[in-house]
This record gives sequence, structure tokens and C-alpha cells, in this order.
Amino acid sequence: MRAEVVAVGTELLLGDIANTNAQVIGRELARIGVDCHVHVAVGDNIERIAEAISGALERADAVILTGGIGPTQDDVTREAIARATSDSLIEDPNLAKDLRAKFSRLGRPMAKINLRQAERPSRASSLPNPIGTAPGVLSELNGKAIYAIPGVPSEMVAMLHASVLPDLARRAGATSVIVTRVVRVGGLTESAVAEALGPTWDRLVQGNVTVAFLAGGGEVRVRLTAKATSEAAAAVRLDAVEEEVRRVLGVAVVGGGDETVEIVVGRLLAARGWTLACAESVTGGSVAARITDVPGASATFRGGVVAYATEVKPSLLDVDPSLIERHGVVSGPVARAMAAGARRVMEADVGLATTGVAGPTELEGTPVGTVVVAVSGPLGDVDREVRLPGERDNVRRLTTTVALNLVRLYLLEALEP
Amino acid sequence: MRAEVVAVGTELLLGDIANTNAQVIGRELARIGVDCHVHVAVGDNIERIAEAISGALERADAVILTGGIGPTQDDVTREAIARATSDSLIEDPNLAKDLRAKFSRLGRPMAKINLRQAERPSRASSLPNPIGTAPGVLSELNGKAIYAIPGVPSEMVAMLHASVLPDLARRAGATSVIVTRVVRVGGLTESAVAEALGPTWDRLVQGNVTVAFLAGGGEVRVRLTAKATSEAAAAVRLDAVEEEVRRVLGVAVVGGGDETVEIVVGRLLAARGWTLACAESVTGGSVAARITDVPGASATFRGGVVAYATEVKPSLLDVDPSLIERHGVVSGPVARAMAAGARRVMEADVGLATTGVAGPTELEGTPVGTVVVAVSGPLGDVDREVRLPGERDNVRRLTTTVALNLVRLYLLEALEP
Repeated sequence: MRAEVVAVGTELLLGDIANTNAQVIGRELARIGVDCHVHVAVGDNIERIAEAISGALERADAVILTGGIGPTQDDVTREAIARATSDSLIEDPNLAKDLRAKFSRLGRPMAKINLRQAERPSRASSLPNPIGTAPGVLSELNGKAIYAIPGVPSEMVAMLHASVLPDLARRAGATSVIVTRVVRVGGLTESAVAEALGPTWDRLVQGNVTVAFLAGGGEVRVRLTAKATSEAAAAVRLDAVEEEVRRVLGVAVVGGGDETVEIVVGRLLAARGWTLACAESVTGGSVAARITDVPGASATFRGGVVAYATEVKPSLLDVDPSLIERHGVVSGPVARAMAAGARRVMEADVGLATTGVAGPTELEGTPVGTVVVAVSGPLGDVDREVRLPGERDNVRRLTTTVALNLVRLYLLEALEP
Repeated sequence: MRAEVVAVGTELLLGDIANTNAQVIGRELARIGVDCHVHVAVGDNIERIAEAISGALERADAVILTGGIGPTQDDVTREAIARATSDSLIEDPNLAKDLRAKFSRLGRPMAKINLRQAERPSRASSLPNPIGTAPGVLSELNGKAIYAIPGVPSEMVAMLHASVLPDLARRAGATSVIVTRVVRVGGLTESAVAEALGPTWDRLVQGNVTVAFLAGGGEVRVRLTAKATSEAAAAVRLDAVEEEVRRVLGVAVVGGGDETVEIVVGRLLAARGWTLACAESVTGGSVAARITDVPGASATFRGGVVAYATEVKPSLLDVDPSLIERHGVVSGPVARAMAAGARRVMEADVGLATTGVAGPTELEGTPVGTVVVAVSGPLGDVDREVRLPGERDNVRRLTTTVALNLVRLYLLEALEP
């Protein structure tokens, strides 16, 4: 069973809103095991919507349209379905009665234009809308299904679950589900992850599990997808592949899908009964902001100092000014002293520091993208210098992740001092 | 001139992420006056990407592909372009050289798999990637253009502006343009902005300028759009409408489209020759992070203290502990003392402080969403208590904007002490 999604609305093409309806429908189709190979977005235009329907039905067994079934003149999905199925629109007396009843329950007068919502292709049936006024449409062409539901997300979701998915599952004879799992990896590039998994690639994709890599924000997410006859059967296969991925990548694995590095750091600190404090220069508060994004952060996070002006480092973080003179502000010794200072002045067990050059221009001969992160704590002091690509935003974002990953590895005792 | 967008990535079909790349590209095409009637999303599959390219070129003069040009085995957009144009892939020695140089500049070894990114269809040219490693592709079929750029949003945007849009505009001969301008408004709700502009609405929309409101992140963006034969003609109409909007909304106007409140604050500080320091509790570093997002922030920003644990406030910010006992940590007197402390300990002219309850649970009887922000400086000390809607993330994000807007109004001398 294969279905496609056609989202209708000129606002999608103009980029006024993101096509989140296609995202939600795609996720739900995968969950019930219906393949979906194409999403299309088209404007409020009868001919182009009709073409999108015909195109989808050439490739798939069903098409789900979202949007364009409201009352106004630019809502033309009903007309487009009629055109694609060589049908014509009629006013359905039952729908008209329902509409009048809905408006009277809401205590609102019904504008004449709302009667457009009582129209449907003559051979189609209608799908009830439990939330709004616009009924959906279910039409057929050569045994293939055409569903039309609203573009308003809440109504779309309600009707997807109440009408579309059950009907699709019935037509599919519901034989399979697609289950997805994500493993987050820190400190490695996308190609390094792919290369590390290369030798076991065959074992990974056996049993029909597909593996994909998504890089971004200093992390690589490895996505494992299995199609099986049940959620349980998919889980068995995914368990085996996830175990293999975790074995090969070792401590580079940060956690499962929702486990961000800041969540994992909080958990590792809590397990040891330790607290953390930050000293940030190049990241300007982003490390503290990510740590405190996690509910309950106050149990393990003491606070941070954003030492942006060089003079703030000695005064607030108790950094020896001669270290800065001797090694420069972007250096291992200064980063270590900042981490140790944060730990001391905020009475934390572990201190984490970032210093570096985010740009736009180099600093005292140190090029943009040069960054040093350091950890100071009961297990000793470590620092790491890295060169990061891209511009200011990117350098700052990546440094934040690199720093959090360093403290994660420190707490796992996976670093050479 | 007509172009279509094809977004590549199985993660889009599975609903792991929303197709925001299509949204951004759609918006930019509209801006330069290129019609776009269809967006398509397909998975990492050579045949289906090739079909999407062919389908798009039947309807349009150009197709922009985003995604699938990374180094890993599932990146197959290059292969699909070769198939759609009856071409074959070659390894471009110049691209291979560039790749090696990029990796060596970053001080990283290049995995062999990265050489996939040096491949291109033999008759295609490549588009430079100023941020990442994957070069883009520009191919042609019967005089129509096929562009391929990365799926990573920052790289996609950079290459769209640097390569794709200028080439498209050149091919289009550019006959009409849509010009959009945004006015950012702080401290008012969407409906308050709409109501304030109500009486002058007719004057606003005369001359074919459309006005829309976009609320989010504690700000309202008023978007003005004009379609005209030239950028200059559009600018004349937009100038008149923007002037009216600014006159009506007064000091609530933060700035133009790219002028975030943090940029404006930096400019106002520089104009007075003043510096700023922050003391953050509820915002956990987000205020400092936003301020230091702006290139050149070091000229006016001294640093910040994230006083997450209550004990850190007295020790690092020199806040009298009896104030906390008497008024509670979320109170005007404590917020003022934090702002004054930040100013003192970091030797800044102005101090900005945030304290509040982000949740998930209330704090000492103070409900989630209660926030106090304060400014201390040469013009006196002020604090403001606000109640913010939503959950943890939202409260933190809104507080950051409210705090930055408070210091903006302070520097404009638009606050009652």
C-alpha cells in the first residue's frame, strides 16, 4: 500500500508557513506501515491541484489532500477533485443541514458563502469534521482513494485519525508498520561515523533495516528504520542493529533519540552527586543556556560566568593575568584556569570552560574557528583545542556542543588527561 | 520564469523534520519575482529523485534541489541528476583538490568517503559551498537549469543567495519584483499592534501594499509587501507605509527587519559610550548568548553571571542575602540588586538582571511564568514584573526578549523609573 500527500495552499509556496501538515501525515503513514514516497505542495489553483492528484494516483494507491476545503473563493480542492475524477459538484442536502445545525449550535449566523462547504463531487462521500465546519471528502478513481481534509492543523489531525488512517489501514489490509529509532553521536563528523560503520554495513542493513545519517549542530544522528509486520517484530530487528551501532561507535554515542548531550551530562552529574559550573568566553552564555534548558537543571548546575571582556577573567574567575599574557587568551592553560576558577568561585565539583575566536575577525593572530575547551574536576584537568568550520554562528553553536561533549566524556572517564 | 523546489531526504517523508528548506526557498523565489507553483519532497532514492527532476522540468524552467549531496552512501542527488540528464558522474580533480584543502585547513583527516563530494555529472558545473564541504551542482537540460544545494539549512541558505538566486534572476531577465520589509515591534501583543494600526489601516494598504502580522518569541513582526516593476518603485511605496507604521507605534518599534533588539541595544550603548553586564537567573545565559551573537559585541558587552543556584547570587553578584530572605528571589528588590551587582563586579555602566520561575513547577509559592527584569545604570534603577504564558521554553525565551527590550527602552529614556 502506497499513499502520497498533497498539501494545498499558496501560503506554503510563498513560504509564509512551513508544511508541517505533510510532516505529521508522513509520520502517521509510516507508523501504520503505509509507504509514502512523495509529498507535494501546490497553490490554490484548480488545474494544478487536479494535476497533482492525477500524478499521485499514477504512482500510488491513495492520495491525501490537506487544505483548500474552507468556505472562501480560494478554497478549490473540491472543484479539483471533481475535475480529476471527471465528476461534477452537487450541493449535498444532508451536509447543508449539518452546516446549518453547526452554526446554530455556535450561535452564529451562517454566511451564504458557507454553503460552498456543503458541496461535494456527486460520486464522493463526505468525512465528518468533529472540530470545524468544513466536511472532508472521500472520492475514488479506478479503485484508488482520494481523501481531502482541512489545512487547519487541529482539524487535519482530528480527521486524519478519525477517518483517513482507519480507512487506509482497512484498504491496506494492515500488514506492516515502519518503526524509526535514532542514535545521537558526538565528536565525530558524518563521514567518520559512516566510515566507522562501513565494515559492519552489511550486518547493519541485513534484516531490512535502513540506516541514514543526519548531521547538524555538532552532532550526527544515526537513524535506523525497520519495516515489519508488527511494532514488536520491528523492535527485535532494531534492537540488534542499535546494539551493533553502539558497540562500534562506543563512547561517541551520546544517547537515544531524545537524549541530548545536556540531558546526558545532567544525568551523569546526578549519578555521581556532583555539580557543574561554567566559564564561557566564545560561547557567550550558550553552554549555560543549553544546560538550563533541561527541566531540573538546578539540581546539578551551580551557575556560570560569561567572561567576555578579557579583564573579567581575572576578576570574576580568579585567573592569573600572567597566564593570559604568556599563553594568550585562546590557549590550553587559560581555558584550564577558567574551568578551575569557575569550579572554585561557584563551589562546584566540576568546572567547564570555553575560549576561542568566533569571528568575524581573527584575534591576536589566532584564526577564526580556533577554540579551546577545558574541564577541571576531581578526575583531573583536561583541555582540547579544535578548529571549527564556518562563520560566527556556526563556530559558537559547534563550540557549545563540543564543550558539553567534553564534559560528558570526562564524566565517563573516557578522556586521556 | 518559473521554478520548482525538490527537497530530498527520507527524513522529510517520515516526518522527522519539517520541510523548512522549501519554505525558505519559496519565500526567496517570491521575493525575486520567480513564480513557484509546486514543491515536492522525495526520499533518498535515485530513481524517484530523477523522476521528480523530470516532472519539475516539464512544468517549469528551473528546479532547485536541496539535500542529498553529502558524503555518505544515502546521498544520491548527484546520481539522480546524472540519470535525469542522461549524463554520468566523474570525479572532478579541482573539487578533490578543494576538498583536501578544506580538510587540511580544519586540521582534520579526510575520510575516503568524502571524495564522493568531488563527483559531479560530466557536463555539470559546481557551485561553491562557503560554509561546509559539499559543493553544489548546476546542470542543464534543454536550456533549463537544475541546481542542487545541501540540505543543512545554513549551507542551503548561503548557497541559495550566493549562487542560485543570482543565476535564476539572470536567466529570468527580472521583469517584476516582490519586495518585503519587516518592522519589529517589542512589548506589544499581535492584537494590540493590529488595534493600534486599525485607524490608519486604509492609508496603510493603499498603493497595493499588503500588511501581515507575525507574532513569535516575544515580538511582533509587521510585514509589508509590495509588488512592482523595480526595487526602487516598490521602495517608494514601502517607505510611505513604513513611516506611517513607525509613527503610530512609536518607541514600541524595535527596528527594521534584521535589527533584532540585541543589535539595537548594542548600537544604543555604543552611541552613549557605555558598556553592559548581565546577571541572569531564569534565563540561564540566554540574554548573554543573544547579546554575544552580534558581531562586535565585545565593544559594549563586559560579561555576565548566570546565578542559577541561589547562593551564587550573594557570592558572585554581591547581593545582600537578607534581601532574598525578605522579598524572595523573584522580586523587584532582588532583581535590582542583581543588576546593580553585575554592573559593579564587572565594572560596566549598565547592569541588566532577570529572575523568575520558568517551571516545570512553581517556586516557593510563586507561579510558573512570573518574571522580574531590572536595569541599573546612570539613569537610575528600574524593575518590571511580568506574567508570561506557556511552558518552560517559552517563558525563558520570552523573558530574554522582555529583558533586552527593557534595557532598550531604558537607553532611549522611555521608561518611568
